Amino acid sequence: MALFGLVEYEDAPPEVRAVYDDIMATRKVDTINNFWKAIAHDPAALKRTWESLKQIMAPGALDPLTKEMIYLAVSASNQCNYCIASHTAAARKAGMTAGMFHELMAVVGMANATNRMVNGYQVEVDEAFRREWPK
Amino acid sequence: MALFGLVEYEDAPPEVRAVYDDIMATRKVDTINNFWKAIAHDPAALKRTWESLKQIMAPGALDPLTKEMIYLAVSASNQCNYCIASHTAAARKAGMTAGMFHELMAVVGMANATNRMVNGYQVEVDEAFRREWPK
Amino acid sequence: MALFGLVEYEDAPPEVRAVYDDIMATRKVDTINNFWKAIAHDPAALKRTWESLKQIMAPGALDPLTKEMIYLAVSASNQCNYCIASHTAAARKAGMTAGMFHELMAVVGMANATNRMVNGYQVEVDEAFRREWPK
Amino acid sequence: MALFGLVEYEDAPPEVRAVYDDIMATRKVDTINNFWKAIAHDPAALKRTWESLKQIMAPGALDPLTKEMIYLAVSASNQCNYCIASHTAAARKAGMTAGMFHELMAVVGMANATNRMVNGYQVEVDEAFRREWPK
Amino acid sequence: MALFGLVEYEDAPPEVRAVYDDIMATRKVDTINNFWKAIAHDPAALKRTWESLKQIMAPGALDPLTKEMIYLAVSASNQCNYCIASHTAAARKAGMTAGMFHELMAVVGMANATNRMVNGYQVEVDEAFRREWPK
Amino acid sequence: MALFGLVEYEDAPPEVRAVYDDIMATRKVDTINNFWKAIAHDPAALKRTWESLKQIMAPGALDPLTKEMIYLAVSASNQCNYCIASHTAAARKAGMTAGMFHELMAVVGMANATNRMVNGYQVEVDEAFRREWPK
Repeated sequence: MALFGLVEYEDAPPEVRAVYDDIMATRKVDTINNFWKAIAHDPAALKRTWESLKQIMAPGALDPLTKEMIYLAVSASNQCNYCIASHTAAARKAGMTAGMFHELMAVVGMANATNRMVNGYQVEVDEAFRREWPK
Repeated sequence: MALFGLVEYEDAPPEVRAVYDDIMATRKVDTINNFWKAIAHDPAALKRTWESLKQIMAPGALDPLTKEMIYLAVSASNQCNYCIASHTAAARKAGMTAGMFHELMAVVGMANATNRMVNGYQVEVDEAFRREWPK
Repeated sequence: MALFGLVEYEDAPPEVRAVYDDIMATRKVDTINNFWKAIAHDPAALKRTWESLKQIMAPGALDPLTKEMIYLAVSASNQCNYCIASHTAAARKAGMTAGMFHELMAVVGMANATNRMVNGYQVEVDEAFRREWPK
Repeated sequence: MALFGLVEYEDAPPEVRAVYDDIMATRKVDTINNFWKAIAHDPAALKRTWESLKQIMAPGALDPLTKEMIYLAVSASNQCNYCIASHTAAARKAGMTAGMFHELMAVVGMANATNRMVNGYQVEVDEAFRREWPK
Repeated sequence: MALFGLVEYEDAPPEVRAVYDDIMATRKVDTINNFWKAIAHDPAALKRTWESLKQIMAPGALDPLTKEMIYLAVSASNQCNYCIASHTAAARKAGMTAGMFHELMAVVGMANATNRMVNGYQVEVDEAFRREWPK
Repeated sequence: MALFGLVEYEDAPPEVRAVYDDIMATRKVDTINNFWKAIAHDPAALKRTWESLKQIMAPGALDPLTKEMIYLAVSASNQCNYCIASHTAAARKAGMTAGMFHELMAVVGMANATNRMVNGYQVEVDEAFRREWPK
């Protein structure tokens, strides 16, 4: 279920099919997740979102597993249930073990705790942290 | 500056000094960040928070750099300025390059965007994501 | 379902019925949403919340459709599922088309992305933005 | 500083002065906080917000100190610096000691941590928690 | 349901049973909530989280009811459904009445409203709030 | 100030200058905001973010002023100070009056309040809101 229903491949207009094809080819899968089918009612948004995501999640200075774990950490911090479920699956596929998941979740919990304590205690940024990144 | 001021080493009671000593020994540094000095007015909280953090951030299934980057990703997502500054410094010390920072920030931005789109479009979790992690 | 159950019209005390009547008259509907029935166990909160909402959502410098879309944008950003569902319905009733919804959601996603990038990169506010609104 | 500047008492129109007078009388103070002066450019919002706040923060089933601590806990969780500063001051005035502040902040940190772990581990609500509040 | 399933007492290894026993003894109950069973796949996290929680929620400068209400206020503000359900139950057990719940929820709503208005109007912190807590 | 400093036009490589030129031409301005200069250290992110933003903020089913106000509403809800300042300026340029700003802020406050009350009272979505958008 989704607000506008899901755009299935067989019902999709050509510009949507082209994105679906690229998603499946890039990810080496043969199904499309509900998220893409849900936003495909706006083909421009589908294309724009997928193009950005593909570029951002491609291997680079960070490997795909690290990127998926960062995505999952943000989704858990934001408490987005769909995103937690889908990016846990994606991170597992990229190699996340149960042990890695447990540690990730512990870091997410700790960061959310100390983020609030820092502000509650009104802590000023240390001088040492104020410097720009040296060239 | 901080709500209760900062507890400097030379003014600290023994149980606070013991934590400060452990922080400096564990991290191989010779200064204490403002966060610890700000919460040291509550020595039990200082000790409890540090002990948890030390355990959580120790090398394990995830290496220290990955953990620091997850901490930074959550802090950026939560928009905690102190935490962003301190964990950017910590991640750099653990080996984060400028290129890695850029990619991390792109993932954080993307995750925050799609987290909201998923909920706005009222997307139901895919059946494939509902399964428990197999043993 | 709701924590205290829902206060239906026929079981409601007079001060709750008076608010329900005003909601139905103001909105030109003949049913009351679960939210109001859920908080009606606290008649003072029901009355206070409705009076504020009625005043805030009335036509003024902004038309009702724009106000409903802003309400929806905040609800999507906060990921409140009930609020997304109810304010999508309200915005549609006020004239939001599918095309407007798609664009609204794209803006919400983009804002959530750049909000985090700004903080992650520790960007200082431009001098040009610091000025008070001229009289 | 504030977007529209601050509306000082001597420059305020009568309907704003009436609210300022009520704030000072209710709180037994002789100054007005910046928040009220900042929103006074919209006298209807000033009056509506103050009337709601006065009603909500009045002694009732919860005493004023407990209410101020809840307000502070939410503000710390939301990381609103102004709100943390002003409600720390208000809670102190209502009787919050340093020891109470420390414990409050520890609870806020813990709640923010476990909130994310619960969602990350995709924990289903216990049957025992699903029941409505008995009459 | 939970990502890794729930670790029931009879299937739990000794270090997990020891924590479960302590939870039941401390809380004077004979069942374990799903949250603990869900994270028990990581016994170190289970132990660490429970030890911190037990220390933080013990009576101190704040009584247990006040602490549970603060926990609930943060969970409601964060919109964590599991946490709202479990801490509403815990707060009721500690003595929260329906009237107290209603007032708590009104404060949470008000705090979330004014937190955003403060930032939207770009209100600067009053000089009076900038002072450190006097010794 | 920003983590890596700001990339000024005269020091920028050609691919960054091309984006800066397009920003200035599209917006009919002759300066570049700090946000763009701060992320320009990652030219791919600069280009990708600007291209998406340009597409999303272009006139369509929603006019530019409505889009800017939605952007501002999300930024105020997220409490991103830079974003509030820059999008208040952008919305004013697109025609937002002081009266419109006041009403926008009132809606943002109200939405943040009721979002939390809905979840705290554990309100189930009305059947009437569960329907997909009719074709």
